[in-house]
Amino acid sequence: MDKNIIQKVAESENLPVRFIEEGLDKGTIVIPLNIQKHNNDKIKPVGIGKGLKTKVNANIGTSPEQVSIEKELEKLRIAIKAGTDTVMDLSTGGDIKKIRREILKNSIVPVGTVPIYQAICETLSKKKTISEMEEEHLFSVIEEQCADGIDFITVHCGVTKKTVNILKKLNRICGVVSRGGAFLVEWIIKTNKENPLYEKFDRLLDIAKKYNVTLSLGDGLRPGAIADACDNVQIGELLVLSELVFEARKKNVQVMVEGPGHMPIDKIAQHVKFQKKVTKDAPFYVLGPLVTDIAPGYDHITSAIGGAIASASGVDFLCYVTPSEHLHLPSVEDVYLGVISARIAAHAGDLAKGIKGAKQLDEKFSRMRKNLNWLMQEKLSIDPEKFRKEREKYKLKNKNVCTMCGEYCAMREMNKVFSSL
Amino acid sequence: MDKNIIQKVAESENLPVRFIEEGLDKGTIVIPLNIQKHNNDKIKPVGIGKGLKTKVNANIGTSPEQVSIEKELEKLRIAIKAGTDTVMDLSTGGDIKKIRREILKNSIVPVGTVPIYQAICETLSKKKTISEMEEEHLFSVIEEQCADGIDFITVHCGVTKKTVNILKKLNRICGVVSRGGAFLVEWIIKTNKENPLYEKFDRLLDIAKKYNVTLSLGDGLRPGAIADACDNVQIGELLVLSELVFEARKKNVQVMVEGPGHMPIDKIAQHVKFQKKVTKDAPFYVLGPLVTDIAPGYDHITSAIGGAIASASGVDFLCYVTPSEHLHLPSVEDVYLGVISARIAAHAGDLAKGIKGAKQLDEKFSRMRKNLNWLMQEKLSIDPEKFRKEREKYKLKNKNVCTMCGEYCAMREMNKVFSSL
Repeated sequence: MDKNIIQKVAESENLPVRFIEEGLDKGTIVIPLNIQKHNNDKIKPVGIGKGLKTKVNANIGTSPEQVSIEKELEKLRIAIKAGTDTVMDLSTGGDIKKIRREILKNSIVPVGTVPIYQAICETLSKKKTISEMEEEHLFSVIEEQCADGIDFITVHCGVTKKTVNILKKLNRICGVVSRGGAFLVEWIIKTNKENPLYEKFDRLLDIAKKYNVTLSLGDGLRPGAIADACDNVQIGELLVLSELVFEARKKNVQVMVEGPGHMPIDKIAQHVKFQKKVTKDAPFYVLGPLVTDIAPGYDHITSAIGGAIASASGVDFLCYVTPSEHLHLPSVEDVYLGVISARIAAHAGDLAKGIKGAKQLDEKFSRMRKNLNWLMQEKLSIDPEKFRKEREKYKLKNKNVCTMCGEYCAMREMNKVFSSL
Repeated sequence: MDKNIIQKVAESENLPVRFIEEGLDKGTIVIPLNIQKHNNDKIKPVGIGKGLKTKVNANIGTSPEQVSIEKELEKLRIAIKAGTDTVMDLSTGGDIKKIRREILKNSIVPVGTVPIYQAICETLSKKKTISEMEEEHLFSVIEEQCADGIDFITVHCGVTKKTVNILKKLNRICGVVSRGGAFLVEWIIKTNKENPLYEKFDRLLDIAKKYNVTLSLGDGLRPGAIADACDNVQIGELLVLSELVFEARKKNVQVMVEGPGHMPIDKIAQHVKFQKKVTKDAPFYVLGPLVTDIAPGYDHITSAIGGAIASASGVDFLCYVTPSEHLHLPSVEDVYLGVISARIAAHAGDLAKGIKGAKQLDEKFSRMRKNLNWLMQEKLSIDPEKFRKEREKYKLKNKNVCTMCGEYCAMREMNKVFSSL
């Protein structure tokens, strides 16, 4: 890894360069950044892993039902404005290559993809079936995306003949909810062949190494229902991924592991600690976890709850979930709310696990609150624009309080009483 | 307690009458319901405590800056529509008595208040100062509110000479953030007298007993900043309240204990268990906890995170926090979002602590998701109206999927693959 990039990451974390270097060496930290961008000053490098601030990813991209490059670029812009650390382009509709290249051209944050989406979409567009996707085609898509400048890719290497066999025997309520996972389960069942991303993992490592692309080992068999959490399939897949982590480290390929999904509060901390143990602290990247199944329309909240607990327990990277999860492709507003919610979860986790700077920020903020310094509160808050707009909604008789308590402001009254003691 | 009411509560929890009776006897369960409403079939009685579903309260009411009875009645209506279990009228502006009586007349859920607000507002309106509030006046307000039909009252009995002395010595960042707490701190400091709600707790018990009003022992010294959580003041006050719990139980007065406030994730479970231990499982009613200070505009999310963890750890009753907390009096929309967020937190907690029916609901929901049964998902979801409206936003080519994945719906594809096995 370029010294200059390590330096930038160290600065953004307010940590010594040595700490970042050691984390990279052990594989407890990754910096997803394609080799072609190492001299690109427009891109903000991001460290993900143990001891660093919890980072946030925003998924954008088209679906067959909703295709608009302009809309996706608008989502990219708003996600960055809301403070996302990375984005993933999950496009499955329209001209996938063109959309990816436009996103790469316009993004100042690292970009991830799930290459199997393109491989399957291209296969189906040739009037073939999912099981007719060819290995060579899949690997050529991966190489193409890496050559385009992608920084990290999700590869569902843990969907294997063995884990699919466990799946078949299990009476899961929601089966497979990952798109990439579902493609591979179908492919394996219908071809009776092994997952090439697992069987030819070395080939994947070679491509990743060539471009310094970080592998994100996807959880294609993640639980999609509270009832399915931490079952044999999920744990079986995690154990496969943990072995691959060590393979990747041997070849000096950066690697992280993905996690669920739907999981009740009482199982999250234990699961995170288990992942950390079996992977010797590989960076853990989770979608959610969503702590209940019943709240579509509010899954930014169900996942903020799970994400905060996960982050507090050691998770390093939160994939946002928007209010529209389970209902429709996110709108621009959904993207914004998704990023902010995930950032709240990440920061709440950082406060709990003692990440440098987290506690200090809250202390600084609360001192401004105590001093009724509304301008500094706005500046330090997680969403200054929202803070200002909300406060402007009401005309105030007393400018230094708010309409909640008005003249009965406890802060103001206590400041008076205690200053006279 | 009326047998009929216990029966109704048992039915709503799907638990044996005996379980509710035992909880009431031990004081681990309360049913806040004024004696005058025991034969009022319009009011839905609510059980709060160990082994029962976590309940949700919505605070409504005017402030000196915002006075409109119509608006508060609209908030009442929307809070009930969103599924709140109780409301509290915290009015401090306009004709407080009239507002309270209108809310009581229109509420089908139990209503709580904080009587000291009225006592202080009336004192100030006579051009007197906070420290000139008279004991007799405070008790007469309490009796008046109980006679009006209020079901539970917050009384800050733990703000005592002793705890105020601890407060004075401590260098808290946010001092006192509870309005009722601040009034009493000022009153104690300036009069050098003991808090009448503590010193004359027996008198309070007599009034509560007469009307079967549940006492909610307020945490007037709760932490208002992450940095202040679990300090000597907070714990000192909790210990005072825990003694009063046993006094109340001796006189067969229903009692619950209030909790914070701002608290980092890593302190919540331990604090809840401590409260439960020192009060021998008195119902615990928390505001939040808010897991970071820096997210005004999104405090329904910061408190949903804390509330879910608290509920999972044993908290029985969540006071909602709206997006406008720390910024302004909540709007009608804020009330709605506040209730839904708190209900999500409550249910996520119930799933984790194994409350009867919680897991079953998620299982049922997820089976409908797997079956692509959108109508039943809508019906079972936490906010069916939101579910329907979101789904209606997009025209679909495939009616049985959603615009997120469209034809690549993992559920649909897996259903096909597995049904052909």
